[in-house]
Amino acid sequence: MNLTEYVFHRIRGLGVEHTFGIPGDFVLPVYAVQEEVGMPTVVCAHEPGVGFAADAYARFRGLGVALVTYGPGALNTLNPVACAYAEQSPLLVVSGGPEVALRRPDLHLHHVVKTFESQLRIYREVTVDAAILDDPATAPATIDRVLSNVVRSKRPGYLEIPRDLVRALVADPVGRLSLAADDRHVSAGALEEATSEIVAMIAAARQPVLYVGVGVRRHALTAAMIELAERLRMPVVTDLLGKAAFPESHPQFAGIYMGALGDPRIREMVDGSDCVVGVGVLLTDLGTGFWTQRIGASARVMIGHDRVEVRHHAYEGLPMAAVAGALLAKASPSERAAPRFGFGTADWPVMGEPAPEPATDDFPVIVESRAPRRPRPAVVRTADVIAALNGLDQSRYSFVADVGDSWFIGLEIRADVFLAAGYYSSMGFAMPAALGAGMAAPERRPFVLVGDGAFQMTGTELATMVDQGLRPIVLLLNNGGYGMLEAVDRPRTYFERRSWDYLAMARALGAQGERATSAGELAQALGRAQEARSAYVIEAMTARDDLSPVMARIRAHIQSAWSGPAAL
Amino acid sequence: MNLTEYVFHRIRGLGVEHTFGIPGDFVLPVYAVQEEVGMPTVVCAHEPGVGFAADAYARFRGLGVALVTYGPGALNTLNPVACAYAEQSPLLVVSGGPEVALRRPDLHLHHVVKTFESQLRIYREVTVDAAILDDPATAPATIDRVLSNVVRSKRPGYLEIPRDLVRALVADPVGRLSLAADDRHVSAGALEEATSEIVAMIAAARQPVLYVGVGVRRHALTAAMIELAERLRMPVVTDLLGKAAFPESHPQFAGIYMGALGDPRIREMVDGSDCVVGVGVLLTDLGTGFWTQRIGASARVMIGHDRVEVRHHAYEGLPMAAVAGALLAKASPSERAAPRFGFGTADWPVMGEPAPEPATDDFPVIVESRAPRRPRPAVVRTADVIAALNGLDQSRYSFVADVGDSWFIGLEIRADVFLAAGYYSSMGFAMPAALGAGMAAPERRPFVLVGDGAFQMTGTELATMVDQGLRPIVLLLNNGGYGMLEAVDRPRTYFERRSWDYLAMARALGAQGERATSAGELAQALGRAQEARSAYVIEAMTARDDLSPVMARIRAHIQSAWSGPAAL
Repeated sequence: MNLTEYVFHRIRGLGVEHTFGIPGDFVLPVYAVQEEVGMPTVVCAHEPGVGFAADAYARFRGLGVALVTYGPGALNTLNPVACAYAEQSPLLVVSGGPEVALRRPDLHLHHVVKTFESQLRIYREVTVDAAILDDPATAPATIDRVLSNVVRSKRPGYLEIPRDLVRALVADPVGRLSLAADDRHVSAGALEEATSEIVAMIAAARQPVLYVGVGVRRHALTAAMIELAERLRMPVVTDLLGKAAFPESHPQFAGIYMGALGDPRIREMVDGSDCVVGVGVLLTDLGTGFWTQRIGASARVMIGHDRVEVRHHAYEGLPMAAVAGALLAKASPSERAAPRFGFGTADWPVMGEPAPEPATDDFPVIVESRAPRRPRPAVVRTADVIAALNGLDQSRYSFVADVGDSWFIGLEIRADVFLAAGYYSSMGFAMPAALGAGMAAPERRPFVLVGDGAFQMTGTELATMVDQGLRPIVLLLNNGGYGMLEAVDRPRTYFERRSWDYLAMARALGAQGERATSAGELAQALGRAQEARSAYVIEAMTARDDLSPVMARIRAHIQSAWSGPAAL
Repeated sequence: MNLTEYVFHRIRGLGVEHTFGIPGDFVLPVYAVQEEVGMPTVVCAHEPGVGFAADAYARFRGLGVALVTYGPGALNTLNPVACAYAEQSPLLVVSGGPEVALRRPDLHLHHVVKTFESQLRIYREVTVDAAILDDPATAPATIDRVLSNVVRSKRPGYLEIPRDLVRALVADPVGRLSLAADDRHVSAGALEEATSEIVAMIAAARQPVLYVGVGVRRHALTAAMIELAERLRMPVVTDLLGKAAFPESHPQFAGIYMGALGDPRIREMVDGSDCVVGVGVLLTDLGTGFWTQRIGASARVMIGHDRVEVRHHAYEGLPMAAVAGALLAKASPSERAAPRFGFGTADWPVMGEPAPEPATDDFPVIVESRAPRRPRPAVVRTADVIAALNGLDQSRYSFVADVGDSWFIGLEIRADVFLAAGYYSSMGFAMPAALGAGMAAPERRPFVLVGDGAFQMTGTELATMVDQGLRPIVLLLNNGGYGMLEAVDRPRTYFERRSWDYLAMARALGAQGERATSAGELAQALGRAQEARSAYVIEAMTARDDLSPVMARIRAHIQSAWSGPAAL
């Protein structure tokens, strides 16, 4: 077996069936091997798309792989890898590299920047483990180490294969890649003490709440959380990053907790609880509503990647999966009545209230506007979009949202599969991520929520989806600019984006499309999109100052917390 | 004056009138300042475009500036900055950054990856100087230091402005930014000895040759080289990176030296010369024809950034501009007859020979082809493209070429302004670089040579050019795939690119366009493009196996040097 076959053998064993990439001369021999071993690469339009597609694939499969060339390929993939690091997504970058035999400073090879190690050092800043495979004798152990670290920590990794070692012979793989080694070091006493304490806290609590974070999705603990919630009859909340880590169609799912910026009923439920059990929660600036979460210190349990905090003390070295398993083994069914949330249910009568009828052109005008604003005669309102999306059969779709109000509108949709770059907040995520989602979970059609600014960045990956026979529905919310930036600042000429002819562009890339300028047209367009046998783009004309509920609260928060936009 | 005004004051003093960027929340206050001081930012579609546009602007103006946000903005700009480092282009990245007051590891701010210094460390790998402006007291000195290093070394730099220091008051700038400090340390004796020796070598030589490299363009020494060549009556060659650093319309310009991969007549002239004076030459793998240049060791003079090599000895610490000035001061007019090259001239009767009439469908078929290849009924031949481009009035255009055969075809064009990423070889360079060229030199219309693979990466920056009122002519050479990769490997399914409807896309972005499938149609299309009052895209249908002369030699070299594509 050669070195590159070893890599493909290992990633196949971890559930990978496709990689994403763009060929280039330093990686050509690696591409020849992927063809030989039957691990096809989805060739994207541009490397930023490669990275986001592989990130999305990783979120479904437990590993995603980007196959890129040295220099331009790898450096153009860097931002999505940084995103995957922040978002805890197990993404492996495999880069071609210059020949070991040519790594002499006096030879100026193309694609090389300062030194032959510059790219490795750059990648060390955005990965959990990174290596150049420059020795066939140690390569298998190095590959196994990097892959284990990626899969265990749910963070990206980096492997560079010098061009003259692609076919170097290496030792055969030994067994399956061991990923459970962590558990051998778990203290049974600590696990027993921690989980007993948590179970007792929940049992004694008046109103316990289960708070599911992004780590639950990454560590594949969703089923365990459903069982725990059902057995203990706890209401469940998630947060920005954790959205859909617990299925939102589940009757015990209450909503998304976001401190002062989220739904006030959820805030009241969580901040007023006497026992909040957080699992895999990552506390970020926006996710916590700019640190306005107020979970009581003596009501708080936080089960993290390898650490458990109970009230004011902590247990180190307890892996999340082990803790979840021990909790399930220990928890007896509760006598409480099971909470029920959702449309018109007893515990939550007003969730997802239907939008009122469209008003006529009377959306609010921002008084301090100094930038030119073209008149927008007819628009789809944010409330219309939310209502229409909640009318879809969500079990048929993987929802993917870009940054900005696309994402905040997405928060209002009940979804079981929902992808976003919710922490790192990189515009341009959604279109390529939909490609990765479609390849990883072909049984669900990708449904993309994207603004015009983000579509201008990576929208051409629509063509790659068409190439792969995917049929995404793309809801392009065209408000003619960078709406989120305007919302936190004020109208500025540099927030304006000229409207491209997005429908002509969609057709040029192999998709169908139509425009919607009212709630009625949006509903009809969604109907046609669902019937369409091709990729389908709906350009919904929206007003930039018609904000989603969350965005409106963010705007209000920023304007009250600081002394107005000038101090931003 | 506040810290950010100080930055804009300094870059304005260095010839910058526009920056390139995309706003984002961490950089919003910096954008507010650019508006106040009247230094408008050209807002691009995506950050890879930002970087290449600013690189191209830098090549004209001596400095280009990218204005990006923290995290996604800066990391998406990284690859173009690496390109600028390799290509020696003075590009400054100004990034917004998190507040100094919030730089605590327990706060998870969005856009932050591992640590608050990760981005700085990443940028240190691709810049000559990089700093976070976290102290108003030292900021002016730091800004001046970074800018001086960028402008002197012709390499990129990085400045990060924390959001809470954007309007921090700083000391006023002291005088103009001093860039000539290097000269104070120049040894007059060394300068005298080196230049006397060089002048004597040239005078004694039978056939001296002036070899102009990319450093001549970067250090703005083109006029000095013209004077030197004319006074000493030397033929002039350039190389891949140095193309158009000496005007190709000049009668003494002979051609491009590329060792065994270039024009054999140029190779004979240079390798056979008894005195080759190289100025600002950067020896790269491809530029030297894979190290097949054979300049005689006792005939060789190399005048570098701050070092002069004469035969087997070297002088350190002599800046290129000082050496050029001293040579001019010392050189007496030669008695030799001035060489004359170009179409039909005595010394070079066959340069730029006209293309033969188009043949009918008889372009060569690659025998080992296993990948599916669609029939291409009518095509424009590479020879037609070269002939047509050489028929243009090159004084009206800034030629910008992407990587691959676009670039090698560009090498066959006589041009005085020619931009390419000739060393770093990053696909996707040309479209955004044309934007930078158009903003920096509005008197010349950008003329882009780009393949379909590269256009798919960054072609949407066409819209940004339209936004800015530029009227580029884009010659899109559509061979349905990554032609250069196929040329150095063999046909593969993963080199195929589906043809988007590029003309519909051009119209969707605000340009006109038409398709050319023969030499005659190409000529007519070029005529209409020249008349057009808008941006104009010509999609020339080409055959993937119809290679430019240089590409054909590269292919032959690779296939002979290695044991075929499998060993690549």
